[in-house]
Amino acid sequence: MANEKKLVEKITARDVDFAQWYTDVVKEAKLCDYSSVKGCLNYLPNGYALWENIKNDLDKRFKETGVENVYLPVLIPESLLQKEKDHIEGFAPEVAWVTHGGLEELEERCCIRPTSETLFCDYWQKIVKSYRDLPLVWNQWNSVLRWEKTTRPFLRSREFLWQEGHTLHATDEEARQRCEEMFKVYYDFVTEDLAIPLICGKKTESEKFAGAEDTYTIEAMMHDGKALQSGTSHYFGHSFADAFGIKYLDKENNLHSAYETSWGMSTRIIGAIIMVHGDDSGLVLPPRIAPTQVMIIPIAQHKEGVLDKASELLDTLKENSIRVKMDASEKTPGYKFSEQEMLGIPIRIEIGPKDIEQEQCVLVRRDTSEKIIVKLDEVTKKVPELLEQIQKNMYAKAKEFLDSHIYEANTMAEFKDIAANNIGFVKASWCGDEACEENIKAETNGFGSRCILENEQVADKCIYCGKDAKHKIMWGKSY
Amino acid sequence: MANEKKLVEKITARDVDFAQWYTDVVKEAKLCDYSSVKGCLNYLPNGYALWENIKNDLDKRFKETGVENVYLPVLIPESLLQKEKDHIEGFAPEVAWVTHGGLEELEERCCIRPTSETLFCDYWQKIVKSYRDLPLVWNQWNSVLRWEKTTRPFLRSREFLWQEGHTLHATDEEARQRCEEMFKVYYDFVTEDLAIPLICGKKTESEKFAGAEDTYTIEAMMHDGKALQSGTSHYFGHSFADAFGIKYLDKENNLHSAYETSWGMSTRIIGAIIMVHGDDSGLVLPPRIAPTQVMIIPIAQHKEGVLDKASELLDTLKENSIRVKMDASEKTPGYKFSEQEMLGIPIRIEIGPKDIEQEQCVLVRRDTSEKIIVKLDEVTKKVPELLEQIQKNMYAKAKEFLDSHIYEANTMAEFKDIAANNIGFVKASWCGDEACEENIKAETNGFGSRCILENEQVADKCIYCGKDAKHKIMWGKSY
Repeated sequence: MANEKKLVEKITARDVDFAQWYTDVVKEAKLCDYSSVKGCLNYLPNGYALWENIKNDLDKRFKETGVENVYLPVLIPESLLQKEKDHIEGFAPEVAWVTHGGLEELEERCCIRPTSETLFCDYWQKIVKSYRDLPLVWNQWNSVLRWEKTTRPFLRSREFLWQEGHTLHATDEEARQRCEEMFKVYYDFVTEDLAIPLICGKKTESEKFAGAEDTYTIEAMMHDGKALQSGTSHYFGHSFADAFGIKYLDKENNLHSAYETSWGMSTRIIGAIIMVHGDDSGLVLPPRIAPTQVMIIPIAQHKEGVLDKASELLDTLKENSIRVKMDASEKTPGYKFSEQEMLGIPIRIEIGPKDIEQEQCVLVRRDTSEKIIVKLDEVTKKVPELLEQIQKNMYAKAKEFLDSHIYEANTMAEFKDIAANNIGFVKASWCGDEACEENIKAETNGFGSRCILENEQVADKCIYCGKDAKHKIMWGKSY
Repeated sequence: MANEKKLVEKITARDVDFAQWYTDVVKEAKLCDYSSVKGCLNYLPNGYALWENIKNDLDKRFKETGVENVYLPVLIPESLLQKEKDHIEGFAPEVAWVTHGGLEELEERCCIRPTSETLFCDYWQKIVKSYRDLPLVWNQWNSVLRWEKTTRPFLRSREFLWQEGHTLHATDEEARQRCEEMFKVYYDFVTEDLAIPLICGKKTESEKFAGAEDTYTIEAMMHDGKALQSGTSHYFGHSFADAFGIKYLDKENNLHSAYETSWGMSTRIIGAIIMVHGDDSGLVLPPRIAPTQVMIIPIAQHKEGVLDKASELLDTLKENSIRVKMDASEKTPGYKFSEQEMLGIPIRIEIGPKDIEQEQCVLVRRDTSEKIIVKLDEVTKKVPELLEQIQKNMYAKAKEFLDSHIYEANTMAEFKDIAANNIGFVKASWCGDEACEENIKAETNGFGSRCILENEQVADKCIYCGKDAKHKIMWGKSY
């Protein structure tokens, strides 16, 4: 039992130092690690397996809406990056430049893609001629690079993994629909598969993506009350199409501008999973994306028949499409329990000589620590039910946390008081003026606008200047 | 029917100009296209879908042998690339260099990875302490960049997609076993899933990977008789481990060098699929990796009941896990037939009013053009059978082509005669001297050594110098 404590002791308690707890969990669960390349991560097997499951589930949802996957180059010539004014302003300061290829200096330097709108538009300009060529609904799973100064595992690193979808449409309406559809895909994926409740809506002018007309965001609340922007969908109108000269002939042979969208979700979302669900024992993974859903730990495994019975159970669960493993190593059961908890595996099954005698085993839930004795012939029925129950419970718990940490402020005094004494988000009305937005953030120690809340009762006046309010905003500190 | 011809007319006949036929097929089947980034490709939906299926099948085979996926950075600091002498000599002339990050010049320039042995070893040196940490069996699916001068779609481009596996072991024996195991995985995958017969064995000294002790290769014969290196598995001994200082403590607390392997397969393999199976009508895809296995083409689709019946068939096949689509567009059936052939879809199903009357449909095989009338209630049984039959037939056809284009030479005169009058490979004995290898290549207009043939009866003397022979070699021109 000395060993058991050791693993948990390696992580700082969540409420003592949340940032340190996060770093400890990432390290001890072996999700990722810094590489020798400054600011770049090595995504290790445990972390990458999580990303693979996220990718598979999300990709399936994409394809159901007609998305096709492609792959465009890692390099962008400088002249292409410069074509859309707002875009280059947003990205130029943070890209890495390739100046030499082989032994020669390049005639034109290229950056490593920070995002690929320019490459998609450049290609579309060449291939789109007629309305028959539209829509184009493309996506790629790749890595991008942004030369960040400060980095944190999953949350901010120079290179990160993501998907970037890019679409081109004949009409404004169709493009807006696609933008909202993908926003909805993200919402459904994160709430259903990751068990993370969300706040969502459009970004304000100052928080939009470089070059976008509208940016839709999904925002999750971490256990420390801060927001993590978890996915965005952008509507560009025809700004990129115009900059790149993408035009198409309609049925009547008239030339039109095309309309564009893009949308992305990155490995940041792994940070959200950790910080929404994790606890003092480590990760807690939602069953739907957990690489291992069940860990079987044989008790007194050297005793006759124990390993046989445990292996039988392993095979039966595998046959029933459960992602299950068995730990029959020489470590003590206590150490194994601790390890399985650190890794966030949803269910642990203990099976020892006494259990076998009674034709049963013990299921232990990672989310509640509840122990459930189950007859061996009922395990294949019970495990999927329990996984679904855990998934639901994790969402409910996170939703309760989110709801109980959203405050409403009607005056700046109220807002400042909430900000000083609570963690979480604050709803407050706003006139639409960027100066007020900045002042609110400055005077509340960092509560920036997360998104515009639709269908919310808006107070009459801006909380800062007192002029007529235009929107109700969800304010919060952010990662 | 005018339209039908049009599509095929766009491609050059295979035996008139093979290189042009290849380029035409890649273009007309919309697999990939050049981007504005010199020498880099845009992988388009049809080409990328093929890569996704290859990836899924191969990844499954990897995981069955215990491989874990990871992701390491796109950048390699110059000092890391330089650590292994042979490796840097092999790659330095063809990497792209990043010299600036954001607005600043980097203290040390980084290259975009041409391959990642150095990154894996650098990280392993930090984390491997004891025999308990071994083996490490890691793989990543990524892109790499090599500054090639001349490029061809899939066969040679500056950036290409691949997987690179890297493994670290306590013993020589275990590392060699892993190297051979992955070689076997490639062999099985390519012969079983891609229906491509192979020649395989070790590379000669001059053809080995930069830094490797042994390189195993699988080589396929294209329709023009040239070889395409389709996958390689390298055994490094402890050369990289020594260069990076990777040592581990064994059970008795003695310090040892670790042993390394790496193995890779790239989007080049798509070139092999095209050039082994394609014909004058376009692509011919092996059913197991065809993104669409069956295309339903309704005949006289405006007539009552046709589309309903065709849609019913579509749903039934989908429910039976067949990757099936229906083309109910306004194009003529002839044009649709031609398009389905260009894309290499294994089976086309024609269903029209007369078929429906007789409760049947017509299955047309892409590989043989054979038409098979099948009762509608037998389609779900017949289609999977036929897909399997097509898969087998494609392999048999390619195997026959390969076998009938392998010659044996006992004298240089014979070799030169074969090389002048035939396409294909030549088996001949060799003393092991690099000078002879080079001379043979020079005097046969490019027949280089593809691999060393094991378990082959070796003639006594080297075909070039007449000294004692060491190996029987498969010689061939290559891509």
